[in-house]
Formats: sequence, structure tokens, C-alpha cells
Amino acid sequence: MSRTPIESRLHQLHEQLAGQGSGELASYIPQLSAANPDWFGLATTTVDGKAYCAGNSGLEFSIQSVSKPFVYAMALVDRGEDYVLDHVGIEPTGDPFNAVTLSAASGKPLNPMVNAGAIVTSTLVEGKDHRARAERIRDGLSRFAGRELSIDENVARSERDTSDRNRAISYLMKGAGSLEIDVEDALSCYIAQCSVLINAVDLSVMAATLASGGRNPLSNEQVVPPELISPVLTIMSTCGMYDGAGEWMYRVGLPAKSGVSGAIMAVLPNQLGIAAWSPPLDRHGNSVRGVKAMELLSDDLDLHVYFPTGASQSPIRRVTSSQVVRARTGRTPREQEILSTHGNQLRIVELQGSISLLGAQEVVEGIADTSTSESAGWLVLDVRQVAEFHPGALKIVNEALVALVESGVEVAVVETQHAGGRRSPQSWRVRMDRDRDLVLQRFEDELILAECGAMPTPGVLVELGECQILATLTSEQLAVVAGLLSFADHSQGEVLVASGDRPTGISWLLSGEVDLLVPVESLIDSTRLRGIGPGAVFGELTMVNDGFDRASAVTTQPTRIAFLSTHRWDQLELDEPDLASAMLRGLAELLAGRQRRMLELLESMAETQF
Amino acid sequence: MSRTPIESRLHQLHEQLAGQGSGELASYIPQLSAANPDWFGLATTTVDGKAYCAGNSGLEFSIQSVSKPFVYAMALVDRGEDYVLDHVGIEPTGDPFNAVTLSAASGKPLNPMVNAGAIVTSTLVEGKDHRARAERIRDGLSRFAGRELSIDENVARSERDTSDRNRAISYLMKGAGSLEIDVEDALSCYIAQCSVLINAVDLSVMAATLASGGRNPLSNEQVVPPELISPVLTIMSTCGMYDGAGEWMYRVGLPAKSGVSGAIMAVLPNQLGIAAWSPPLDRHGNSVRGVKAMELLSDDLDLHVYFPTGASQSPIRRVTSSQVVRARTGRTPREQEILSTHGNQLRIVELQGSISLLGAQEVVEGIADTSTSESAGWLVLDVRQVAEFHPGALKIVNEALVALVESGVEVAVVETQHAGGRRSPQSWRVRMDRDRDLVLQRFEDELILAECGAMPTPGVLVELGECQILATLTSEQLAVVAGLLSFADHSQGEVLVASGDRPTGISWLLSGEVDLLVPVESLIDSTRLRGIGPGAVFGELTMVNDGFDRASAVTTQPTRIAFLSTHRWDQLELDEPDLASAMLRGLAELLAGRQRRMLELLESMAETQF
Repeated sequence: MSRTPIESRLHQLHEQLAGQGSGELASYIPQLSAANPDWFGLATTTVDGKAYCAGNSGLEFSIQSVSKPFVYAMALVDRGEDYVLDHVGIEPTGDPFNAVTLSAASGKPLNPMVNAGAIVTSTLVEGKDHRARAERIRDGLSRFAGRELSIDENVARSERDTSDRNRAISYLMKGAGSLEIDVEDALSCYIAQCSVLINAVDLSVMAATLASGGRNPLSNEQVVPPELISPVLTIMSTCGMYDGAGEWMYRVGLPAKSGVSGAIMAVLPNQLGIAAWSPPLDRHGNSVRGVKAMELLSDDLDLHVYFPTGASQSPIRRVTSSQVVRARTGRTPREQEILSTHGNQLRIVELQGSISLLGAQEVVEGIADTSTSESAGWLVLDVRQVAEFHPGALKIVNEALVALVESGVEVAVVETQHAGGRRSPQSWRVRMDRDRDLVLQRFEDELILAECGAMPTPGVLVELGECQILATLTSEQLAVVAGLLSFADHSQGEVLVASGDRPTGISWLLSGEVDLLVPVESLIDSTRLRGIGPGAVFGELTMVNDGFDRASAVTTQPTRIAFLSTHRWDQLELDEPDLASAMLRGLAELLAGRQRRMLELLESMAETQF
Repeated sequence: MSRTPIESRLHQLHEQLAGQGSGELASYIPQLSAANPDWFGLATTTVDGKAYCAGNSGLEFSIQSVSKPFVYAMALVDRGEDYVLDHVGIEPTGDPFNAVTLSAASGKPLNPMVNAGAIVTSTLVEGKDHRARAERIRDGLSRFAGRELSIDENVARSERDTSDRNRAISYLMKGAGSLEIDVEDALSCYIAQCSVLINAVDLSVMAATLASGGRNPLSNEQVVPPELISPVLTIMSTCGMYDGAGEWMYRVGLPAKSGVSGAIMAVLPNQLGIAAWSPPLDRHGNSVRGVKAMELLSDDLDLHVYFPTGASQSPIRRVTSSQVVRARTGRTPREQEILSTHGNQLRIVELQGSISLLGAQEVVEGIADTSTSESAGWLVLDVRQVAEFHPGALKIVNEALVALVESGVEVAVVETQHAGGRRSPQSWRVRMDRDRDLVLQRFEDELILAECGAMPTPGVLVELGECQILATLTSEQLAVVAGLLSFADHSQGEVLVASGDRPTGISWLLSGEVDLLVPVESLIDSTRLRGIGPGAVFGELTMVNDGFDRASAVTTQPTRIAFLSTHRWDQLELDEPDLASAMLRGLAELLAGRQRRMLELLESMAETQF
């Protein structure tokens, strides 16, 4: 498949509509009336920066009215919303783009997408005179496009010679008090704005910058702050297509802006910028091929912003507790017993998918269950599987978490690492962690301390007879084993087995702690396979000549090890078949128990994984 | 937490705005001018049918203009879009609701949200006369509300006495040819429509029906088809708030409709219907408290439809192959070897989250990798973890799958079961399965057949010496074991071990197949833990006195079993320690290998699970 689905659609549309001959060229300046009516370019840019195009997508044209939403955004940045709204209205008008209509009540232009409003808007951009403002606008449009744009001085000159109607509008506004500076100064800047040269690909990048919350997906520059995007897209949706706005929103359903040079850009929020350019215009002043291309594309791919998406899955992936899911750390039998009995106090709630406002409500109810259960002291909220949070949803969940903390529950949110996915970590008002395993271990420690009044003591020294595999041996058998062992004290951080090496024998921990680490790429959040404590064993599979282990073994604190080399084990099998049999039985029991727990873990993932 | 986040916000808003005193009551009929200016109700209903309210949410009022979008939807159902668009325009107007403005070009009313357009629209509803149409409308509105609504005859009478302006509009339209029936007949129906009684909760349900694609979330009735929702919501967004539409979309950003009785409903698509009712009106004819409440709520929770959501996670959860992930069926060593060597021909692509158009493009690229790799014959696309598909995204993915099938790749989509989540299964243009395990097994069978030219033959009879645990025994030891075994032939479907029972010994399959089934609720898509074939063992944990197994064992075909009772095994341990030791060693090796595979499986889930 050489072309992506979007790309191949652009080519199909181009082919389908290139022969379409209706529409009239704009005639008021020579540069537009001299356009080739066959010119037709299509381009899209995704919010992750992939650009596709078809037809004359590299030919330059003057931006004309398509500049208006971008300059409106610049005015909002430079002056603030209140100031801008004081000078230009936000109501749609049923009138054409060049109508001489002002608000009867205020004398203000009705909205920034008609010429009157756009002329005022361009005076609101920062700059001491029309040259400075025009340069600010050229520079700002360039940032939206992600490359340096220039002003076509020939177009600007022609515009100046034929701008009688805009001059009339400007004088009317000057008279009404809504244009506060000199008319020619205002017009000069507005004309320069309209004369900036772009091509269809540029325009799709500019639209994609609006689609991606104001961040240019090519340059990654945050051109305007995200909070200005919904005002700009709203104005485009209500006023962007002039007196064709109603039909446009009905048929295409995307915020858009058109211009007399034959350009149209449309924004699929959070996804795509779309640009079409073809000079012949319909009676509204919109490109005939451009409108048709957008209608067909929207219809084909259901791009309409109000297209119903249907119900979605539950945002709650799983609710469990440390009775089922544990930190991968060594726990003494007593500690394990405490977690089995009281582990319901440590709840783990895993979220998934796209969290809407509605989903957030469900999450809050799920979390609230935690606080109303009689013994809920710890909550781990795992959001790493969340595709996206609606901002309001995040707010609601945050509120509920803060309320839990205030009611005395220990709360931790486990967030994705930035490297782990496209979604950026959210702002949490409670403690946030990357490593769920370590959070679980800390909370389990706290729970065990609360229940039995003493911290877990991994430093304790155990007897051989308390160790895994050896626990059922008689004291005579233990004495035989002890005679074959070598004992060693290791300091913290020693690598007892390197990853990829085969262990040279069986190691029992008499004190301390060893982490078994797996260095696999997929384990982004933690490479710890299991931490083991006093009484635990590693390297035990050498007893049955199983292949090397991929895990490395590293001490996390001073640790005393009893070691039985493979060589001595082989000898023991020959010399003491009964003892070997008992130890093999111990190994089988250990493995059987481990299999049971792994199966439980796998089962608890089963709904989603199998 | 006794109140949900949305509920508590409704109460806060009610408290905050109840004392707000500005606005004028509608004065043209006594029933409206006699309203108590303090009446103030708020209500929301979610698309999953949860209703919340505050204030006077149970008091009835006449629906007035809020009826317009619903009746427009009925006209679209009854006459089709083309016919309706021929009679009523879809362009916004800067004029008030009762303006006497028709399209200069066509004589049509400008849109169905102003009185002129609504009068024509109500004549387009099915019915032989005004009574039949009024009944159709009352019945239709009742379906949107989920309860039987009635017409307030007093309001209707008053409206009739004071409808001069609407009468004038109607005669103008009659003169222009856009109203095709008798003026009084048209007005009678329109007046009945405006006089239907609802309360704020009803209105929130009606709005929620629009939010949920036309399905009433309380009655679950599909009131209008989903494809009519985006037209209706579009008209509401461009024309619903009269000449305040621009400011409304700017500040609130939700499709909405208001009426002179003081009601406003707003739709948060796919999530929520919101209703506010308070009689005092602003100069546009919109409820003062209602507008304020909606502005505050939208600002608080970022409800604006164009609010940027930011980047989301990758839609591809994992790409793997049958070199790593296998069907839980018995495979001979030869078959396992084939899968280890050639399993990359069977690719498994797992999707997740909310699949946008952009995400679909990424999915298509991921799938395309499958077809361009030199040896890709089978593809399993697992979409069970998908929260929702954008319709255009589904189309794009479907196209790519069909192209794969046409290029000779065997494709199966594994879909969620309806019971498994709120998301409904999608329409797939390729084969769809519920049980991923069975699809994998079938594709593995095909792969093995293609590679080695022969089907797996589970019916084959193996020797004891080829069986698990027994494979390393000497022929003398095997003879001893054979003497202790009992042999039995079982037909298909026999339950050898019931779930929850402890196996009474060790069973080796000499031929046939047994499924080990786990009857846990969480295993929605498959309860098969593992299928085992000739040479495999079950009940082996009785050798080490491990507790009962939760799995049941059921034959899937005629199966020959060699059985060693626990009693005889215990005796063997005493009588033949060397033999027992060898068997325990075999058990430990079996468990060690199984542990290794489970760890690999767990690791392959690690990124998302640990």
C-alpha cells in the first residue's frame, strides 16, 4: 500500500473534480482574474505532522480572507479577549463578505470574518504603525505555516488601487467610532495581510496548527495558546463561510475559512488540517471545487463534528486489591498472610480508553466505593492505559482524589512515562508515580506496619530449614545439605548473576534482599521481575538443568547467601537419591505454587488479554 | 460522596443563580406573563440514562420554541432531507425569532429555528390535517421525553388569540409560495406544538436523546435514526439561540435551543443532555438564568465542542506473532518447532483506546507492514480493547483489511462480545470472531499444514515413554509405571474432572484431546485455559499434594487415558524412591518450562500491566 488512506482520497478527489468547470474567477484585481481556472490543489496535514497533497499544492497564491482567523488569534494574544470583543462582534451575518453592515446597537463590525471586522482586527495586532503591524502579521502567519512567508507587492498594489469598498466600510466605521486609527493606515496593514503568499500545503499546516491546539505540528512551536483555539474555531464555524456558513456546517460540519483567491481551509479538531485551492468561485465567494472536495471528503469519512460516535467502553478496566495483585517484592509468610487478610484496604483501580465527562463520573463513583468501604486506606489509580482525558473529566477525577486524600486515604496516581506513548502526562493534584510496583510496595509496607505494628524486616537471618525447597527436609538431611554449601556475605548493589549468564548453582537468601531484574525494552515502567527476601531461592532451575535465566540478580542491601553449586548438586543426586528426591519434590511444590499464582494473575488479565 | 460531580454542580449553580433578579417575563400570553420569576430548574440526563436535577425541575411549562429541533427531526424522518431542504433553508439569520424575513432568492424561510421556518416545518410532519399532525408531534415529543406529554389547551387558546405576528408571517409565506397549505390549518398545528407541557427533567431527557444518536436513554427507543442527529445539532448550533447564536457558541460552545417560556436545552454530543428553565428572559428572548447557568457549567467543565483535547496514545497496543503468543491448545514438539520458526507469518495486532481518523491511518500503516513483510499469511486484528471507533476510522481500517484479504492474507478480526462492554461490536467487512484463542488455533493449524504438508493429528496414539514427566524414565522404570496404570477410552464430551473437584490422580493422554476449562466470570471470551493433546498430562500436581485445581477437564474427541491414582503414586514413592525421584524431576522440568512460558507471556503484557 504505497499511499495512505487520506492521501489516496486526495488523489481521487483531485481526479474526480479537476474536470469540473463551473464558477467565476474573482475579478477585482488583475492577479486574481488572471488565474488559471484549472489550478486545483489539495493538501492535508495531521496533528502529528504528516503532510499529504495532490494537484497544484505547491503553487503560491495570495492568502486573502483565509488570513482572518489567524490574525484574529494574534489580536487575542496581543490584546486579550475582552479588548478584542469590545471592538469586534461575534455574531454571524446573513450578508456577503464585503457587506457594509455594522451592529445597529454598537456600531461595531458584526464579526471578524467579514471585511469590516477583519479591518478592525488587523488594527488590534501589536505594532506602532501599519508597517510594524503588517510585519507582525506576516511573521505570525509564517509561524502558523512553519516557514517564512512573503508579501506579494504586486497584489498589494492592485488591492490598494481597488479597495474603494473596503475604504467606504472603513470610513463608516471611523464615523461610528469603531475604527480608532487613520483609515489609510488601517487599510495598508489589512491589504498587506491579504497579500501574503502561501500554497495549499502551507494552508494545511496552518489549519493543522489550529487542529492541534495551537502547536505547529511541523515546527512544534506553540504559535498561540491552546485556550484561544475554541474561540477561533467557533468564529470560523459560525461566520467562516460568509452567507454560506449554514449550508457549510450542515453539509461539511467543520470549522472553516474561505478566501477570494479560491482557498478554503477546514479544521478537524485534534486530528487534521485540510486545505483546498482552486480559483473559480461560487456566488458566496467560496471556491467551487474546494467546497465540493470538502463536502465529498466529509461525507466519505464522516468528518462532521456532530457525527454521533455511539457508546464507548467503560473507563474502568479493572478494580482489584493487594489481596490479588502484589508488589514484586519478597514477603515473609507472615507478611503474605497480612496482605491476604487485609489487602482489601489497598485498592487498585485501573482506567482505560478515552475518559469523557461521563466516564469521569463513572470513575468517581468507582473511587468513591473505595472511601465508603469500611477499611479503605490506600488507593492506587493506574491511568497508564488512558488514551486521553477530556479536560473537564480530569478536573472531576482530580476533585474526587483530593477529597479522598482529605478524608485520610493515601492516594497515588500511576501515570504514563512521556516516552511510553503520545499522550502527555496529566496534571494531578495528588501524588503521582511512574513505577506502580514501587508504589504498591510502599503502600503494602504501610499496610503491614498498620496491621502488625512493625515494619517488615528483610534484614532478619533465617535458618536453612526455613528456606524454600528445604523446608520439608529432616534435620539429618539439612545437615548433609549444609555441609555442601558455601556461605558468603554480599554488600548492597552486587551483581550475583548477570543477565544472560547461566547461574552456576542454587542460592538461598539467609538475610537481605535480591532483586531479579529483566532488562527488556517492553518493561518501561520497571524492570524488576521480582524482589526476594530471606528464605527465598534463586537459580533453583539449575536443579533440573533448565536453560539459562534471562534475569539478573542484584542485592539491594547487605545479603547473606547460602550457595550450592551445580556440581555439588549433581553429586548429591548420585550419592543421596532420597535427599535429592525430597529436594526435587520441594522444587516441584515451589513451582506448582508459583504456577498457581501466575495463572491467577493471568486470569485477572484474562478478560482483556485472551 | 453522596452527590455525583455533575449533580453537585447543578445544586451549586442553582444556589449561585437563584437570587439573580434580572430579565423580563414573556408578556404576549397570560400563562407566560403570570409565571413566577423565581422559578428555576436545572436537570441533566446522561446518555447512559442517569438523571440529575436541582430546583423546580418537576414543574411543567409549555415547550414553545424548544420544540423546533425535535419537530424538524420528525419532518426529516417523515419527508426525507431533500424535501425538507426544498421548503426551509438552513442559513442563520442575525434577526430576532419572530422576524418577518424570508430568503430574497427563494421566498423560503431562512431556517427551521425561527418562527417562519418552524411553522413550515410543522406542516411537513406526516398527517392528513392539523389535528393529525399535532398528534404526531405530541406523540413524537413524548418519545423524545420518554413519557406521555399533553397539550395545555389554555396555553393553546391564548396563543391562538395573540398569534397575529405568526399569522402575518404565514400569510407572507403563503403569498411567496413557501407555505403550501391553509394558514389557519398551519397555525393550529404550530400552536398545539408550542403548547405541549414538559418539565426540566423531560427536557434534559429530550436533549440526551439527541446526545445519544437519537436513542432515548431511558426508554431505549430509537426515536430518530442516528444519521439525522448531525443535521439537527448543526441547525441548533448555527440558529438555535436566535440572534444570540454567535455569542452562545463562543461562550458555551454547545448546540442548543431556547424558548420564550424560559427553557434552554443544550446537547453535549455522545455524553449529556442539559436543561435549564427560568422564565425571565434577556433581550434575545433567552432565559437569563439559563444562559448564565450554561455558561458557568461549560466554563467549569470545558464543555465547548472545540476545546482541544491534546494528543492521545497510540491506537496500536501491541504487535506480536505466533512466535510469541500461541493458542492454548496442545501442540506436539514438532508443531511447536514449526511455530517457533515460522510463526512470524501469523501476526497479531492489538488495538486500544479511541480510534480517530488519525489513529486509523496509523493502524492501516501497521497492518500494511504485515502484507509487505515477505512471509505474512495470517493476520489477527484484536479490537476488543478499543474504546470507540470514529465511523470514518472504521471505514479506513475495513478498506485496508479487505485489501489484505484480496492480496491473499487470511484475516480475522476479534471483536468484543456485546456483554463485555458498553461498546457495540462494529460492522466488519472481513471475518469476525469472538474467541481469539480459537482463531489462533485455526490459523496455527493452517500455518503448520502449509509448512509441513500435514494436518496436526490429535487422534494419534503415543507411547507412555513419549509422555510428559515420563520421557526420561528407563524402559524398566516405564514398565513399573505401566503396571500401576489403569487405561480407559473416553468418548467426546466426557467430564473427567469437574471444576472444583480435586483430581484423584495423574492422567496421561495417549490419544485424543482434553480441554482444561476455567469457569470464571472474568473469562468472557473463552473459558479454555489450555487444550492438551497426546502425550500431555493433567492432575500432575497431585504428585506434590498441591490443593485442588479450579479447572475442569473435558474430552473434545475420543480420548485414551492412562491413569495413575494418587494412592498408587504414594505407594510408588515409598517403594521405588529412585523412580519417584525421576518422575518428580520430570514434573519439576515440566513446571519450569511452563513457568518460563508464563513469564514470557506476562512480560509481553508487562508494559501495560506492571
